[in-house]
Amino acid sequence: MALNKKPVTGMREILPAEMQIRDYVIGRIKETYKGFGFTPIETPCVESIANLCSKQGGENEKLIFKIMKRGEKLNWKEAENENDLADSGLRYDLTLPLSRFYSNHAANLPKPFKALQIGPVWRAERPQKGRYRQFYQCDIDILGDPTNMAEIELIQATTTLLGELGFSGFTVRINDRRILKAMAQYSQFPEARFEEVFVILDKLDKIGTSGVIRELKEAGFADLAIERCLQMFEEFNQSEDGIAYMGEKLSGFLEEGTTENLQQIAECVTQTAQTDFQLVFDPTLVRGMSYYTGTIFEIGMEGFGGSVAGGGRYDEMIGKFTGVQTCACGFSIGFERIVTILMDQQFRIPSQAAKKAYLIEKGMCSERLCEVMREAQNERSQGTQVLVTWMNKNKKFQKKQLEEEGYTEWKEFYINPLRQ
Amino acid sequence: MALNKKPVTGMREILPAEMQIRDYVIGRIKETYKGFGFTPIETPCVESIANLCSKQGGENEKLIFKIMKRGEKLNWKEAENENDLADSGLRYDLTLPLSRFYSNHAANLPKPFKALQIGPVWRAERPQKGRYRQFYQCDIDILGDPTNMAEIELIQATTTLLGELGFSGFTVRINDRRILKAMAQYSQFPEARFEEVFVILDKLDKIGTSGVIRELKEAGFADLAIERCLQMFEEFNQSEDGIAYMGEKLSGFLEEGTTENLQQIAECVTQTAQTDFQLVFDPTLVRGMSYYTGTIFEIGMEGFGGSVAGGGRYDEMIGKFTGVQTCACGFSIGFERIVTILMDQQFRIPSQAAKKAYLIEKGMCSERLCEVMREAQNERSQGTQVLVTWMNKNKKFQKKQLEEEGYTEWKEFYINPLRQ
Repeated sequence: MALNKKPVTGMREILPAEMQIRDYVIGRIKETYKGFGFTPIETPCVESIANLCSKQGGENEKLIFKIMKRGEKLNWKEAENENDLADSGLRYDLTLPLSRFYSNHAANLPKPFKALQIGPVWRAERPQKGRYRQFYQCDIDILGDPTNMAEIELIQATTTLLGELGFSGFTVRINDRRILKAMAQYSQFPEARFEEVFVILDKLDKIGTSGVIRELKEAGFADLAIERCLQMFEEFNQSEDGIAYMGEKLSGFLEEGTTENLQQIAECVTQTAQTDFQLVFDPTLVRGMSYYTGTIFEIGMEGFGGSVAGGGRYDEMIGKFTGVQTCACGFSIGFERIVTILMDQQFRIPSQAAKKAYLIEKGMCSERLCEVMREAQNERSQGTQVLVTWMNKNKKFQKKQLEEEGYTEWKEFYINPLRQ
Repeated sequence: MALNKKPVTGMREILPAEMQIRDYVIGRIKETYKGFGFTPIETPCVESIANLCSKQGGENEKLIFKIMKRGEKLNWKEAENENDLADSGLRYDLTLPLSRFYSNHAANLPKPFKALQIGPVWRAERPQKGRYRQFYQCDIDILGDPTNMAEIELIQATTTLLGELGFSGFTVRINDRRILKAMAQYSQFPEARFEEVFVILDKLDKIGTSGVIRELKEAGFADLAIERCLQMFEEFNQSEDGIAYMGEKLSGFLEEGTTENLQQIAECVTQTAQTDFQLVFDPTLVRGMSYYTGTIFEIGMEGFGGSVAGGGRYDEMIGKFTGVQTCACGFSIGFERIVTILMDQQFRIPSQAAKKAYLIEKGMCSERLCEVMREAQNERSQGTQVLVTWMNKNKKFQKKQLEEEGYTEWKEFYINPLRQ
């Protein structure tokens, strides 16, 4: 019986042209982040089902690929629910595994620990264009630094990387979950429904003020609260120093130092920028994951809907493993998105090694072939990429194909050496 | 409830020190193999259960981590056997996915196609020291070249890589599945039990001639066959040119050109060697996988039991997907094994960038901190790795730890600049 040629639903294969760009981007990521003292680590792709379903992952927990128990443990005839069949699953992000890793190894790791992770994660989303069920994430995290040096360095490193990859003119938006909360308190939304309010606010740039008002009303929030909230945004928009305005407006609701903290981050990032970008305080920035506890940030680019990077502070997640609170802050770049943008821009990798093809007439005797291969080995040892291949009947077509693969030089070898 | 700190059974995490070596080895692999014209590709870690269980994988098919069906498709109450619960699983090697990939994309790929794959695979083996359930494989394959140029290049590339990684004095053993078969025919073992004979022969270097005789007898093979077989090995050992001896001895049983083919490979590889190693013909080399159809090869190193690389020709596997026969030949290096050897040898990565740490007194004001960070950014843009971190109370201990992480230079920044 013939086997199935297609990859499984929603997952995809990476062809040589894209793979070159991915390898290049990964190379730049490692180089740049290592320059900031981030250390690569790796965790297994498989995590225990108990950890994956521990409510850290929000909506992603509905999208887990579960791995079946094995042998006698798999007793499906007596299973009462799905989770009786599985004992592990594929990770849906790199943050949960990092938190577990850190809890497991903290004693042997530098303090603070600056981790770099690049690797695949899996989510069983409905297949659609540009969304795949296996995709790479690329995270940097600083564990154990309570100061905003963590935020500053994460934003510095990420913006420097984007600059290295040729991007400029992008926008870093920052906010703080505590400001969101204070705004909701000030506006007198009911505390139990804060997250709902945030989700609607988050849509401001997509549906506009009128859209936000409509959705808040439809959700049944009081007119007074909606009014107080929007009044505040209006004043904010007209203020000269948005962060200072919020600090004053929300004093009494805000933890002390919250706006000063943001101000320092904004100033230091701006003053040490290596690339052309702008940093703005955006009090409507929400970020989906509920594990964030303080600063949150996101990078957007004109013309590419959605963000190319996002992150924030999550000071409570690691404590769930250890019982001991450990502060943490991370920034994740949208690796797949960046690769897609570069592919669409027909990005050319700078300064690649020369690529040369040796075309050998078919039927060449073993001794001559050896000589040719020795020549190839010598060229390689001097840094040239040399492809040794049989000459096709249609040499012109073959060369055209090789050109498409990036080969710019050839050498032809014939059975009769006089032909060369 | 506290979460589980340990990774799932049999899988492991990779700490910074090992990760550095892994990254270095992957870098050398990509560099060296690209030099030979191999092109990186990637396939999903998940494959359909039908393909995984198609008898291509031999014993590995018993070790598959199966992924549960989702939603309505998962109907465990009416499941008759395990496979009714799963529709996919984690790949156990990179050869099956490559064969599927090639069948799917052959029209858009160069001919022959020279693929490089590096990635994790999973096998649910009984956990034991040095054996993990997730591990990396690293394969090069040449698809669509029926000539022994494929074998020659695969061995050249692999031995060159090992040389680049600092290894020398290793042994490449080669054989041909067709010689194994001819030997068994010549000895008059029953055709239906050839594979059993091969498995016992394969142990020759471990259990010696007497051990092989004992096991063959215990398995019930005829004394005459055992005698004919061992007589042949004795003559082979005394012959000056082992390949030529086998060619003569087995003429009538061997496909024409089989030994000449091996002879050419041996000669060309030896003559173009870039590293110090020896190549030997070993008629007892078997290689486990039944999909091999011709040449097989393996690299061993003195003092490291087991092989560090293995491969061969498998001309029939891709045809199982397409119905159209496509010849193929591959070589896989034991990535995990090589990393372990380098770790054991306390391998030092050559020519790393300078690593410098900036130690900043705690409580430094925001402006001064900005200045320090700007200085760090400038040094980074000149290629230095700069870690910016808060100074600990015990500075001596902190520096000792940083030294262990490879930092060789420091600079200290105090609140009172006169202290510097």
